Amino acid sequence: MSDVAELGRRAEQMIAQLAAISAEPGRLVRLYLTPEHRRAADLVAGWMRAAGMAVSEDALGTVRGRWDGGDAGPRKRLLIGSHLDTVLDAGKYDGPLGVVAGILAVDHIMRSGKALGFGIDVLAFGDEEGSRFPATLATSAGCAGAFDTATLRLADGDGVTLAEALRRYGKDVDAIPSAAYRPQDVAAFVEVHIEQGPALEARGVPLGVVTGIVGQSRLRVAVIGEAGHAGTVAMTYRRDALAGAAELVLLVERIALDSGGTLVGTVGRIAAQPGAVNIIPGRVDFTVDLRAMDDDVRRDAVAQLQAQAWRMVETRGLQVEFETFHEESAAHCAPTLRDALGAAISALGYPRVDLPSGAGHDAQMMAKLCPAAMLFVRCKGGISHNPAEYASPDDMGLAIAALIRFVENFGPLAQ
Amino acid sequence: MSDVAELGRRAEQMIAQLAAISAEPGRLVRLYLTPEHRRAADLVAGWMRAAGMAVSEDALGTVRGRWDGGDAGPRKRLLIGSHLDTVLDAGKYDGPLGVVAGILAVDHIMRSGKALGFGIDVLAFGDEEGSRFPATLATSAGCAGAFDTATLRLADGDGVTLAEALRRYGKDVDAIPSAAYRPQDVAAFVEVHIEQGPALEARGVPLGVVTGIVGQSRLRVAVIGEAGHAGTVAMTYRRDALAGAAELVLLVERIALDSGGTLVGTVGRIAAQPGAVNIIPGRVDFTVDLRAMDDDVRRDAVAQLQAQAWRMVETRGLQVEFETFHEESAAHCAPTLRDALGAAISALGYPRVDLPSGAGHDAQMMAKLCPAAMLFVRCKGGISHNPAEYASPDDMGLAIAALIRFVENFGPLAQ
Repeated sequence: MSDVAELGRRAEQMIAQLAAISAEPGRLVRLYLTPEHRRAADLVAGWMRAAGMAVSEDALGTVRGRWDGGDAGPRKRLLIGSHLDTVLDAGKYDGPLGVVAGILAVDHIMRSGKALGFGIDVLAFGDEEGSRFPATLATSAGCAGAFDTATLRLADGDGVTLAEALRRYGKDVDAIPSAAYRPQDVAAFVEVHIEQGPALEARGVPLGVVTGIVGQSRLRVAVIGEAGHAGTVAMTYRRDALAGAAELVLLVERIALDSGGTLVGTVGRIAAQPGAVNIIPGRVDFTVDLRAMDDDVRRDAVAQLQAQAWRMVETRGLQVEFETFHEESAAHCAPTLRDALGAAISALGYPRVDLPSGAGHDAQMMAKLCPAAMLFVRCKGGISHNPAEYASPDDMGLAIAALIRFVENFGPLAQ
Repeated sequence: MSDVAELGRRAEQMIAQLAAISAEPGRLVRLYLTPEHRRAADLVAGWMRAAGMAVSEDALGTVRGRWDGGDAGPRKRLLIGSHLDTVLDAGKYDGPLGVVAGILAVDHIMRSGKALGFGIDVLAFGDEEGSRFPATLATSAGCAGAFDTATLRLADGDGVTLAEALRRYGKDVDAIPSAAYRPQDVAAFVEVHIEQGPALEARGVPLGVVTGIVGQSRLRVAVIGEAGHAGTVAMTYRRDALAGAAELVLLVERIALDSGGTLVGTVGRIAAQPGAVNIIPGRVDFTVDLRAMDDDVRRDAVAQLQAQAWRMVETRGLQVEFETFHEESAAHCAPTLRDALGAAISALGYPRVDLPSGAGHDAQMMAKLCPAAMLFVRCKGGISHNPAEYASPDDMGLAIAALIRFVENFGPLAQ
């Protein structure tokens, strides 16, 4: 266990060094293709070189540390990684932990002198959060050969397009296709990440095997009634859009609760028009975010919501309009990789707990290229995207120890 | 009935002339103490003089047309009036109808040659809507002797205080106390106004006797939960402030519906924090507007709302905070005046319908000075504060005919 403690201590130190690289003095802000991204990428590249890896950077800014596995030859590669970018006012573990875990695992195995029979690339992606441009996972899409060139025209808050930001970062957009791995060269992708939820803490276990990344449907809903004077229109004459919307907010919650834990549903934004204290709302707009591991469960929930909403608002003399503005299928983690991660956890003396990821991750993009898996690490109170985000050095050390064991036993899966 | 048609036609013409006086070319905007107010006041003063009244203007800008009732002597006065100011993008009947009705009634009675045995003042108030300064009824408060000098420090959207605006309008703020009538000089106040609601239209009658002006409670409500990731926090772990607020929006509606028509309740504004599609709301703020003719019914409703809200949100692990930011007692119309208006309506061949006013009016302020009453006129679809606001010339003619009859029979009540 002294290895675990030492791995955790080193991870914590490296994560703290990355957390010191921010665009703002009082809080952590490290966005894609900014000077802070450059400094973080250079720091990570230095760690990779110190661990004995050959370092390159692709056309979208992903830093790649390459190791041949102690044995030269044209063999498949195991990809390990996560991202360096953050949300605004971020915690320091979301992303960096997975990059640092890969570097420390390679460092540990390389020093042990074992030959793996496959190569390893540690990947430090750059835009998982979508905090700068209105898109996410462009860097992992580049590696997966799934980059959408339309993304290049998206602009940040200052009107700078992704294409222009890449040029300023010293990149050649014409070289983006060369960032893609060939599927036949890759055995798998594995990502270590804090859970960003409370499930592992609630079960009292440090690590979890991710079953997959949930699919998402995001809808804009408009409830249309009739504005009126709050004093002169009797209750029975009203067509109050907000009263109708309130029923639909509770309907979203009810559908999710009735799913028995297979679906979550959230209304995050709401606005009533005209929005005066003394005027009955004539129109209410709100958003719905539905996520499930099973795409059919999610699609059924959308259909159920629409059908029941129509009936509910009809009795109030209201109308309702739905627009799905974002839809993404679930990404399932490969069963063989899940079992291999579970075996590594068991070998460390901890129970295997399987759980879905409710949040998006680079692994969902990499799953388009190759079998992918994720190892979740317990985080305090389930808090993330917040300076209070915390994973203990002991838990991080266990995660890296599990990753090392996973890599050491990965040989048969790399064929 | 040719009198009624003629009265309606003249009212419609005068109202159209006033509607042409606006600060904006495409829509009706006539705010207190603006150049448009000046022009409207001058037009009304001209009509009063043409009808044979002596015109003055008090220190708050109320235009007063004075007639001795055809018989000199120090006797009590009947006050008749309404307001000249409008909301933004207003309809043309809300306010002007009551001023025009007073002028046409006096004109009609004066030409009939009858002596009334009491005097009449027609009053054209200036700030019933509160569209310029964050206060209402300052001009009727001046007449009622209830003006609050703190109001003078309130500023409009450009930072101009009421005191400064009065000076620019040529007024002397030190003379405001002299605007107050002495109670012993006044017999009653009566106001003709469009209903601004759908009740008269629904009952198929042109006129209604107002029982009083409802009391109001306005509350700010904050529901406090815990923000969280829309994907990673299971439904059963959530403390979703918006789901809790949705229950409270429906509770407000339920309490009002259960009152059997004695109370109306409205949630007009709502905002969820942090307000992102993919974040569970940690805090929701909304407003509640409760109105009832019976102050006890309204206070009970506020108490019921708070008690039930606490229980509801507690089971969700939420907290709720209430702040009452506006409270006004109901103003009851004088029964003798209501009966006199009802008799006038009956004499015209229409049924007497009594109804409360859900909106505020100058009459509620004048009720602090003397017995007050209101005559409501049917308006199309209950629509008001909107360019589509409409009252037919026939209905307006009937209202003025009823007012004339009321005045002609008012003698015994003026003692």
